[in-house]
Amino acid sequence: MEDNGYRKRKKLRQNGVVGPLLTDLYQITMAYAYWKSGKKKDVAVFDLFFRQNPFQGEFTIFAGLEECLKFLENFHYSESDIIYLKETLPSTIESEFFDYLKNLTAKDVTVHAIEEGSVVFPRVPLLRVEGPLIIVQLLETTFLTLINFASLMATNAARYRIAAGKQVSLLEFGLRRAQGPDGGLSASRYAYVGGFDGTSNVLAGKLFNIPVRGTHAHSYITSFTGTHDLHTKTLRHRVTGEEHDMLTLCQEWRKELAKHLETLTEEASDGELAALIAFAIAFPDGFMVLVDTYDVKRYYAVLLMHIFLFVHRSGLLNFCAVAMALNNLGYKALGIRIDSGDLAYLSNRARETFMLVAEKYDLPWFAKLTIVASNDINEETILSLNEQGHKIDCFGIGTHLVTCQRQPALGCVYKMVEINGQPRIKLSQEVGKVTMPGCKSAYRLYGANGHALIDLLQRSVENPPQVGEKVLCRHPFEESKRAYVIPTCVEELYKLYWKDGKICQTLPTLEGIRDRVQTSLKTLRQDHKRNLNPTPYKVAVSDELYNFIHDLWLQNAPIGELF
Amino acid sequence: MEDNGYRKRKKLRQNGVVGPLLTDLYQITMAYAYWKSGKKKDVAVFDLFFRQNPFQGEFTIFAGLEECLKFLENFHYSESDIIYLKETLPSTIESEFFDYLKNLTAKDVTVHAIEEGSVVFPRVPLLRVEGPLIIVQLLETTFLTLINFASLMATNAARYRIAAGKQVSLLEFGLRRAQGPDGGLSASRYAYVGGFDGTSNVLAGKLFNIPVRGTHAHSYITSFTGTHDLHTKTLRHRVTGEEHDMLTLCQEWRKELAKHLETLTEEASDGELAALIAFAIAFPDGFMVLVDTYDVKRYYAVLLMHIFLFVHRSGLLNFCAVAMALNNLGYKALGIRIDSGDLAYLSNRARETFMLVAEKYDLPWFAKLTIVASNDINEETILSLNEQGHKIDCFGIGTHLVTCQRQPALGCVYKMVEINGQPRIKLSQEVGKVTMPGCKSAYRLYGANGHALIDLLQRSVENPPQVGEKVLCRHPFEESKRAYVIPTCVEELYKLYWKDGKICQTLPTLEGIRDRVQTSLKTLRQDHKRNLNPTPYKVAVSDELYNFIHDLWLQNAPIGELF
Repeated sequence: MEDNGYRKRKKLRQNGVVGPLLTDLYQITMAYAYWKSGKKKDVAVFDLFFRQNPFQGEFTIFAGLEECLKFLENFHYSESDIIYLKETLPSTIESEFFDYLKNLTAKDVTVHAIEEGSVVFPRVPLLRVEGPLIIVQLLETTFLTLINFASLMATNAARYRIAAGKQVSLLEFGLRRAQGPDGGLSASRYAYVGGFDGTSNVLAGKLFNIPVRGTHAHSYITSFTGTHDLHTKTLRHRVTGEEHDMLTLCQEWRKELAKHLETLTEEASDGELAALIAFAIAFPDGFMVLVDTYDVKRYYAVLLMHIFLFVHRSGLLNFCAVAMALNNLGYKALGIRIDSGDLAYLSNRARETFMLVAEKYDLPWFAKLTIVASNDINEETILSLNEQGHKIDCFGIGTHLVTCQRQPALGCVYKMVEINGQPRIKLSQEVGKVTMPGCKSAYRLYGANGHALIDLLQRSVENPPQVGEKVLCRHPFEESKRAYVIPTCVEELYKLYWKDGKICQTLPTLEGIRDRVQTSLKTLRQDHKRNLNPTPYKVAVSDELYNFIHDLWLQNAPIGELF
Repeated sequence: MEDNGYRKRKKLRQNGVVGPLLTDLYQITMAYAYWKSGKKKDVAVFDLFFRQNPFQGEFTIFAGLEECLKFLENFHYSESDIIYLKETLPSTIESEFFDYLKNLTAKDVTVHAIEEGSVVFPRVPLLRVEGPLIIVQLLETTFLTLINFASLMATNAARYRIAAGKQVSLLEFGLRRAQGPDGGLSASRYAYVGGFDGTSNVLAGKLFNIPVRGTHAHSYITSFTGTHDLHTKTLRHRVTGEEHDMLTLCQEWRKELAKHLETLTEEASDGELAALIAFAIAFPDGFMVLVDTYDVKRYYAVLLMHIFLFVHRSGLLNFCAVAMALNNLGYKALGIRIDSGDLAYLSNRARETFMLVAEKYDLPWFAKLTIVASNDINEETILSLNEQGHKIDCFGIGTHLVTCQRQPALGCVYKMVEINGQPRIKLSQEVGKVTMPGCKSAYRLYGANGHALIDLLQRSVENPPQVGEKVLCRHPFEESKRAYVIPTCVEELYKLYWKDGKICQTLPTLEGIRDRVQTSLKTLRQDHKRNLNPTPYKVAVSDELYNFIHDLWLQNAPIGELF
């Protein structure tokens, strides 16, 4: 392995989708044991579901379906995969098994699924996978890998969107802290699906057609030490084309504005001014800059350090000076980014400054300049800023979003519920881990106000619930918990997505999935969505499914003493 | 975007390494502002470092260097990258800038770095990157992405290794819960680097030549409902080749062993026995199976559920029966996996059972059968199992390992420390965030017993510390903290890895990096490595660097009142 896998990875990634080797070895080991023991023609049904909503919330966004379908489309062991497996598995394995693998595709598999981007709940299978036991078992790990993180990220992003409200822009800035290069790509993709407006990740922009955003870092500001670092000083007027000396113009504005902003011109950094002017010359229509590089005035004497906070006076003054100079030349500045300090306080001070300048020079748009905030923001920060009252128009969010720091994994599982027409139930000490046996259908029942009331699981052989008719909804395990629901609308949750080796639905664009998230969330009552102590949404089983589960449970109870 | 990026991703991943578009947009925006303002010939030095060890520990493992070097080797904007950037950036951007990008490579960059796999500490730069400002700035995000997660994972894995001890095997089982497909691949790769022995991830095995491991899931057991599901019942003797009826043999052994194991034959599941026999026939030399599918005896009556735990009697009895049958045919079973319950207690009971059978039938190897434990294990679980006393030989670890649940991101940063020969210092309210200005060298000083004493940062122009000579080591910010150290050995931490467009060191194999982790950790005193309240390892600066920092700090202190 002189090249530590680079050359091999080159070939393997050529399809852009993952292949069947992205799995746990035990799937292949089991496949051989099944094959060897004559279970090649066994057929099974597996459910893919989770048991608990992430982030102590009461809803989850389902994502990753399209990637699963692309995986099925491309499911094929390459020549080199087979060679690797032959080297890796015990030499006692019969060579016919490898011929079997070589010809294996997903054409005999059928997949029903909930629409990608839907709000989903614990225990309701997201996917129902049917087909030959060996192949449906072989899909487990890859499906889980593709759905777990996608759904977790989309849910996390949707929560940030709920916390921030509709008016605020949300940008994903997390690439540098993501879990590996493609961890970062997946994060950008599903943050967008969950409701973010853009990403800083250029490759994600190119691959997924997501809007990309970004201006500059602190190092950009500090790379200018003074106005002598400014090699290009002129900018043409937007309309007349006449060339102007930006440096002189900005210096004049700075002197003028210093009076109103209660800042001494000497307190503002000349390096910063030069950096901002250079940025304005490069992006006269896109002047959006960091203002907190020199926010802090420091007094250093004899080993003691006294810190006085002067609210970005340097940055704000310099920004306003350059923005006014741009205005003279026919350009409108966009706004500022704050990356440190007390964001509620600082955004209010910045807004006051903008309003003051707007009034003083009769430029109403100046009052509405965009204020972007970044710096280790999470859902709680946003909620706290809301309470304090802030003037932020846009949040740039990194680590907490892309690594899902609060809960970095979703626990989707993939469980067999039927084999050769026989239902299977997994019993467990924890009643929450008992699986729902058999092939099931799922319905969402809506009330008159358009809100989702309950999700109902039934046996697939049952008739669907009818609009306007009483439906008995039962708790799956507690005999006494039951209620009648009269739905105003009944939504069948499963669609057929994969059959006979083909995707059988027109797949939505990423944009379409993103819209689905918001429309689906709208059907959910506010109390299910709130951050603090949300109300659990109910998932029920039909009376027939209830009895089916509990009969099977009794049959599987072992022989022994009763008490 | 009808295909949501799949076709584009296909092309982009052909190199197997990441390209220059895997970055934040602001890097490219800054590049243009620099280019436009005539800073094309500016040269800068950046340090890549972290400020705090992860997981509340006192050490970090440095990983990801090789991926950074491959990135440099392949640094090139493709035709389609340029087209995308033209579409995305403002139309006011001069077209010569895109010509400039098109011809940009990393040939003028120089990278010094610490050896991959080394133990490293806060503030000591892992990489020192020198070259034209524009290009070294453009490397920031990608370097951080490649190093942050790799180092975090390797550190996490190394911590599990320390907790588990050298005798225990560690397997990474986390693919299904990882942050996306390549999040899973990176996790497998760097878990191995950090000291794991193998992975369940087959693709990681193929790409990185990591040992792969795995047997079967619970669904495998439950897919057999009884002995009638066993289509192949015979196995040939390992030596004589004579065919034997495994089912009958196993049933006889089960009856025989039931007496000794205090289990009723009726309590054991026939479906489980069939599954184990099928597995033994498929893998007679690799008989390692789950024994906890039917661990729990349940009594279900009138809505009340009484649970009695019978310590996997079904699984243990069935396992021992099949293992003894295999022994009759000349094969040695490998062991069992336990995936639920009280792992300390259950592993002890399993070991007792194995010892009992070993003694009863005079088969000493039976007492040493491998016991693998899985089920949501983390570092604390292992430490607690150690305290309780367990008999586990191997841990399979998933979610907590691969997502680094305890702290899912490392905070490496990339800071400018010099521009055009002028040192730059980043001041901050928090003294911990003040950067060390200028081009620096780093040394590790060792004591007589071979333990690392301290890491020392110096200005690059200084002479290196000498063996046997007093070296003044100073706290970077606290004037009173200083000490003389007389090193027995001095290690220069930086090697030149990249210059003139070429990798200038022979890169180690993954195995080599993995060995480096263990040898490097060995030089670290035990108290720095322990889980509870570890002692911080000291990082110092030379007297010259101390004065250099503080002079610069004073120069940058703003004008204002002193107190």
